[in-house]
Amino acid sequence: MHPTNDPDLRSFIDVAPESHFPIQNLPYGVCRPKEGGEVYICTAIGNYVLNLAELEQAGVFDGPQLDGKRVFSERTLNKFMSLNRAAWLEARTTISNLLSADEPTLRDNQSLREEVLIPMDEVEMLMPVDIGDYTDFYSSEQHAFNVGTMFRGPENALKPNWKHLPVGYHGRASSVVLSGTNLHRPQGQVLGEDGETPEFSASKLLDFELEMGFVTGPGNQLGDPIPVSETREHIFGLMIVNDWSARDIQKWEYQPLGPFLAKNWATSVSPWIVTLDALQPFKTEGPEQDPEPMSYLKSDEGWYDIKLDVFLQGEKMDKPHKIAASNYKNLYWSMNQQLAHHTITGCNVQPGDLLASGTISGETEDSYGSMLELSWKGEKPLKFPNGEQRTFIQDGDTITMTGYAQGEGYRVGFGEVTGKIKPAKELKF
Amino acid sequence: MHPTNDPDLRSFIDVAPESHFPIQNLPYGVCRPKEGGEVYICTAIGNYVLNLAELEQAGVFDGPQLDGKRVFSERTLNKFMSLNRAAWLEARTTISNLLSADEPTLRDNQSLREEVLIPMDEVEMLMPVDIGDYTDFYSSEQHAFNVGTMFRGPENALKPNWKHLPVGYHGRASSVVLSGTNLHRPQGQVLGEDGETPEFSASKLLDFELEMGFVTGPGNQLGDPIPVSETREHIFGLMIVNDWSARDIQKWEYQPLGPFLAKNWATSVSPWIVTLDALQPFKTEGPEQDPEPMSYLKSDEGWYDIKLDVFLQGEKMDKPHKIAASNYKNLYWSMNQQLAHHTITGCNVQPGDLLASGTISGETEDSYGSMLELSWKGEKPLKFPNGEQRTFIQDGDTITMTGYAQGEGYRVGFGEVTGKIKPAKELKF
Repeated sequence: MHPTNDPDLRSFIDVAPESHFPIQNLPYGVCRPKEGGEVYICTAIGNYVLNLAELEQAGVFDGPQLDGKRVFSERTLNKFMSLNRAAWLEARTTISNLLSADEPTLRDNQSLREEVLIPMDEVEMLMPVDIGDYTDFYSSEQHAFNVGTMFRGPENALKPNWKHLPVGYHGRASSVVLSGTNLHRPQGQVLGEDGETPEFSASKLLDFELEMGFVTGPGNQLGDPIPVSETREHIFGLMIVNDWSARDIQKWEYQPLGPFLAKNWATSVSPWIVTLDALQPFKTEGPEQDPEPMSYLKSDEGWYDIKLDVFLQGEKMDKPHKIAASNYKNLYWSMNQQLAHHTITGCNVQPGDLLASGTISGETEDSYGSMLELSWKGEKPLKFPNGEQRTFIQDGDTITMTGYAQGEGYRVGFGEVTGKIKPAKELKF
Repeated sequence: MHPTNDPDLRSFIDVAPESHFPIQNLPYGVCRPKEGGEVYICTAIGNYVLNLAELEQAGVFDGPQLDGKRVFSERTLNKFMSLNRAAWLEARTTISNLLSADEPTLRDNQSLREEVLIPMDEVEMLMPVDIGDYTDFYSSEQHAFNVGTMFRGPENALKPNWKHLPVGYHGRASSVVLSGTNLHRPQGQVLGEDGETPEFSASKLLDFELEMGFVTGPGNQLGDPIPVSETREHIFGLMIVNDWSARDIQKWEYQPLGPFLAKNWATSVSPWIVTLDALQPFKTEGPEQDPEPMSYLKSDEGWYDIKLDVFLQGEKMDKPHKIAASNYKNLYWSMNQQLAHHTITGCNVQPGDLLASGTISGETEDSYGSMLELSWKGEKPLKFPNGEQRTFIQDGDTITMTGYAQGEGYRVGFGEVTGKIKPAKELKF
């Protein structure tokens, strides 16, 4: 175990056991003071953010990988991500040392502490990465089985290719937005009541998809696939992803080229990138893969035990209600397999690409990662304490996803990704 | 007619009637001296490029829209594209005046001419745009009919949605490459001879797709669709696009989420962006659209008469042979309709997005825009003068596409997009 993952490690900053941000986490984000001021790259510790740009300018990152590189004096993490694992681990080690209870440099320097440790509620988080390309996979077997069963019956639920390769498609990068962005209900073509004639409408079957996504570090040259054994060198960290979906738009448009407008109006991500280094203690075994994957996909890494919860709060509800509890380990194909597959034709990835998992559903009915599955196409409405029901998302509903890996006495968490659906806009043509 | 489109306008630079770059064109590109030196934005006139960065620094662009903006002192056209049509027309008018036979400023200043007019064969063209997102449509009825007929028969060739909306999907922006980039044959999963079991193989059914793409100028805010009547304000210009496709990879992978690896290994574009202003004289009527499009798609603009040719040259052939002749007007859905559809859910476009047409096939067998159609799934090999045949692209084959609009005594052309297929790389897992 790397010393930065030691469960007994403590910071001089008090961190509650249920906090997402103990010294074992040290995720990366980008923020700005709410009262105005410079944008800076930061990490999180307890209820504080730590200004890494200031520390960089103060010469703290003086190791062989980072000295003089000025990667934290940027407005996004892309430059830091474009380095390599040695640089990432050097930064993690430096920050971990600086925050540890035994290290006086920052602990005993009150003026420096006041300059670089800012209460989290005094800053606004910003999009941490300039996302180049966004890809979305479909890698949870239970989700693919559920959706396939609804439309084709359980015998033909999975298409013949599903267990041979991680099915995926290209998404829209421009509309990936940060947690907290509220969204108008999208409009477009949907099938009318006769099931044959399209009509223009606000989406009536609005859904979320509970996903996680990884962002890439160094890329590969066009034409040179990334061998699956080297994929870990190209994966920087993970975020929670809500792949908002308009099911009625999707149903009408998606043949034969896949989802397009149903998904391109917004995809929300959590503000903190949790690194693979922080997640090392939470590795788990993957599922048995049968048939055996082809050589270019053979890998036993990329599965992690990360609990994931989804909450819905309507405007008349007094608090968010948990509607699903899943886990990142509920994936058939791992992120390493996804990346190897994505590049096998020679497709190039670049620092800051986002590759999402697809909806993560577990085996029980309360672990499904979308309203489509939770309400089984609307046949089983979800019931809430105030008497309201939901089959799909209503105007005014806020969807919040959160996730963490549980250590002994601490949690490595992702914070949350939240967004509220506002009524459709009035359009003029 | 705008004065810059006057067919009688002539430059003091000699331009042959068959040149793609008369004074009526003035496309935008980015280049670098082959002998080394600075990257600069340029236009083309006859066999010369005109250095717009130098002219900008000399104060030539002093009109109200461009003065002080320094849009040509960039490495890509994105900043210029992000302005508006008034700025684009001001630049066009300034350049047209400067190059016209009657205007002495540049004509009679030999030292300035030598500084800013460079023989085209002394420069290397570079990618003119930093492409944010890439979308590919499927808007030629004949192409959709041909492909649908091969797989489902002529009665069910078009899916029910096809005539109601411009079907499209998100593509991969990172692998959009410039004309002249040679590419290794991609490898991946394809179905074996039994038609059921996948195997790992270099693609045996390698194809091109003849397309054109438009690049966007100013974008829209997330949540605010672009009304079809305003789409012209957001379209900067057009390029020729070769959407390389591995048909065997595509066939196995594409259900249910659409093409992914079959397309993401490369998309080639021509180096010059021809503006909508240059194409004004070549507007044509679109096809009759039945059923009538919904209000948000109603538009009578976006079709242009642009001849498009495809050539194939094998390594043992003495020259490129024309294998297809199509036309940009062979599109059912126009670019304006494509853009209105793309944003109707509120999806945001940004300056420099690429939206391609989909394969452009005409009604005759020699006007089909892909090998899949030209050889009808391989059933009708193309025959070449040296006795060779082709059903799909072989190693060593070079595919070249070119296109132009024919005026009276002049051509507004796109140059060409070319690329050679090299053998598959040896891979190690």
